[in-house]
Amino acid sequence: MVNIAVMGYGVVGSGVVEVIRKNSVSISKKAGQEIRVKKILDIRDFPDSPERDLFTKNPDEIFDDPSIGIVVETIGGIGAAYEFTKKALSKGKNVVTSNKELVATHGPELLKLAKENGVNYLFEASVGGGIPIIRPLNRCLAANEIHSIIGILNGTTNYILTQMKRQGKDFDEALKEAQQKGYAEADPTADIEGHDACRKIAILSSIAYNEFVDYKKIHTEGIKKISLADMKYAESMDSTIKLVAISEKIGDGIMARVAPAIVSSKSPLYSVEDVFNAIVVRGDAIGEVMFYGPGAGKLPTASAVVADVIEIVKHWGTCGSYNWVVKDGGNVIDLKETRTRYFVRLKVENEAEAKKAVENAFGNVEWVKAYDASVQDELAFVTSCVLEKDYCNSLQQLKGSKAVKDVVNAIRVLD
Amino acid sequence: MVNIAVMGYGVVGSGVVEVIRKNSVSISKKAGQEIRVKKILDIRDFPDSPERDLFTKNPDEIFDDPSIGIVVETIGGIGAAYEFTKKALSKGKNVVTSNKELVATHGPELLKLAKENGVNYLFEASVGGGIPIIRPLNRCLAANEIHSIIGILNGTTNYILTQMKRQGKDFDEALKEAQQKGYAEADPTADIEGHDACRKIAILSSIAYNEFVDYKKIHTEGIKKISLADMKYAESMDSTIKLVAISEKIGDGIMARVAPAIVSSKSPLYSVEDVFNAIVVRGDAIGEVMFYGPGAGKLPTASAVVADVIEIVKHWGTCGSYNWVVKDGGNVIDLKETRTRYFVRLKVENEAEAKKAVENAFGNVEWVKAYDASVQDELAFVTSCVLEKDYCNSLQQLKGSKAVKDVVNAIRVLD
Repeated sequence: MVNIAVMGYGVVGSGVVEVIRKNSVSISKKAGQEIRVKKILDIRDFPDSPERDLFTKNPDEIFDDPSIGIVVETIGGIGAAYEFTKKALSKGKNVVTSNKELVATHGPELLKLAKENGVNYLFEASVGGGIPIIRPLNRCLAANEIHSIIGILNGTTNYILTQMKRQGKDFDEALKEAQQKGYAEADPTADIEGHDACRKIAILSSIAYNEFVDYKKIHTEGIKKISLADMKYAESMDSTIKLVAISEKIGDGIMARVAPAIVSSKSPLYSVEDVFNAIVVRGDAIGEVMFYGPGAGKLPTASAVVADVIEIVKHWGTCGSYNWVVKDGGNVIDLKETRTRYFVRLKVENEAEAKKAVENAFGNVEWVKAYDASVQDELAFVTSCVLEKDYCNSLQQLKGSKAVKDVVNAIRVLD
Repeated sequence: MVNIAVMGYGVVGSGVVEVIRKNSVSISKKAGQEIRVKKILDIRDFPDSPERDLFTKNPDEIFDDPSIGIVVETIGGIGAAYEFTKKALSKGKNVVTSNKELVATHGPELLKLAKENGVNYLFEASVGGGIPIIRPLNRCLAANEIHSIIGILNGTTNYILTQMKRQGKDFDEALKEAQQKGYAEADPTADIEGHDACRKIAILSSIAYNEFVDYKKIHTEGIKKISLADMKYAESMDSTIKLVAISEKIGDGIMARVAPAIVSSKSPLYSVEDVFNAIVVRGDAIGEVMFYGPGAGKLPTASAVVADVIEIVKHWGTCGSYNWVVKDGGNVIDLKETRTRYFVRLKVENEAEAKKAVENAFGNVEWVKAYDASVQDELAFVTSCVLEKDYCNSLQQLKGSKAVKDVVNAIRVLD
């Protein structure tokens, strides 16, 4: 029998206890031995919980109990979670977590500490909720050189964009609805500004390219600026708009960004709607594979945590953790030096002159018709694939033209 | 260093050697030690191959070489492949294969033999080509009770159906094109009759429900009867037609079938086109996840084989094979006792009377309008969810009605 302790009895933590209890027979069978929750750490009281006898407010009861071999950290954040994880690993306990912030911030240190102590630090649940992605990326695609990862990694923003597309709601309205349905938090900043997706693509990239990718170096834009008109333009191009997290190995560096993007109906990401997540992985042997499923939620996330626990029990004593090399000077390529196509909308004074100005600034572009007769004094186009720095220069030049009154919006096009 | 031997230097076998050679540095890093191809068995000569020194025609050179720890079986079929696999396992060698026929036919015996000899018999590549599905199903979803698996598991038929839908080709035309493009074999029986998909769903089900599912017990229909008119009807219902392999745990039994089905645009399987495969897995904690990618091809399949090899090397000496219990009397539920909705097309003499006859036989049905004004003397409808045996009885009754001239086709509807 293996004893585990759960630190933090919130949504995910209580889900972990529930899944282990509910499926104990089949879980024990797959793990090769019984898995028992021995202690639960939480500062709150749960007098009515069927688990009430397992609760403690004192973490040392867990650290100092040599019979506890695995600690599930579902506290979140990088305060207590960080300290407790370090302590647990130092005490020779395996740690499993769903805490993307902690992994993205202190991953290299914690993985090193795990290795030194001959234990595992696993975090399948930190990305994509219940979708199996970290182990498949590391194990099932191990024969591949991974070229790129493209993902819809945040359910909240995907829900908002889906509502804008389907119901014709504007951003504020769709956000409000997401909050009412519990898909967005009262303070939705981390989701809608792209910070959540940024941490997740940093973790996936670190696994895929086998070197630490610092999330602070990743260019990140949210979806606040996306309007209903942008969405309608996208639809008229047989496309939609998604918050896309992307990373690509280019030479010795890594291109990575989180930003809204025009996604064609030909992309497998196009039909990923509502709160679902999906991750497309491209490798040299496999070509392209996609993983799709619920990106959050109590039981899906718990499912991923418990799978890590089973993995540790099954391969007890063997250390399967990753080794994230931290490169001096970093490895994330300056976004300005990367290439993309841009969809650009302009308010114009004189259409003919504005078109000339656009072609002066950008060379050949693909003109996009207004999605509707009501759209007045606008020009829209898609640039060729250009360096971001050249795009910025061209845009600057365009802004100087008298024929152009304003740049309404500019959104990258996913190729 | 671990030495491996490859038996069968066809498409997949040569792909395995190519991938190991090309990505040797990163593969060794992930496996923890170098992996070297020491011998290749094939009855043909490859005098110009860069691997020419590794070839042998004598399998004993592999069986009797104690330095070879892993045998990759990419011979195919259940003749020599079966004998060689048994021999290799008996000699204490791990075996990795892409041979779905062998796994579906002799899986329980070979897994038992592997266990007795303390080695692994792994077959990630036998289903879904390069898509990671077997390990994720067994490992990453280990915390779940799996309820059902629904898959597009055959690329050839999916390509044909996609061409029918997109290009308005009929079945024969689309098949011919698939053969010209190398997506269908000269004798396409195994694909278009559903046998290939049947073996794959049998393997996936055996993994998911942890007991052997005999492919011979699975009701299997191919796509030969699907006409362009059926496809147009499906489109008019905002759906399409796919060859769907499905299995579901119902009580102590397992429902399983392979048959064409009407798939709604709301299903994640709807947009899986061309030769791509996809597998939707439903579990009690995870809800629904989907795995999508290339279902065949040299390098994708090789990628899955090599991933199994790396897994064995990484966890050397630990036996991670499955245990497939063979239930007395089988576990596959008689299809007649399972439920589905049916889409039915009739040639009719008198529409009003035929409608009455349909309602007499099936009770309430959902009438489907003709997709086109050119469709004459036809009635189409979707039944409610009924037992297959009741459906057969109702259809028999309907055939007796004078108002009904003929049943043109009947296709299950995927719910």
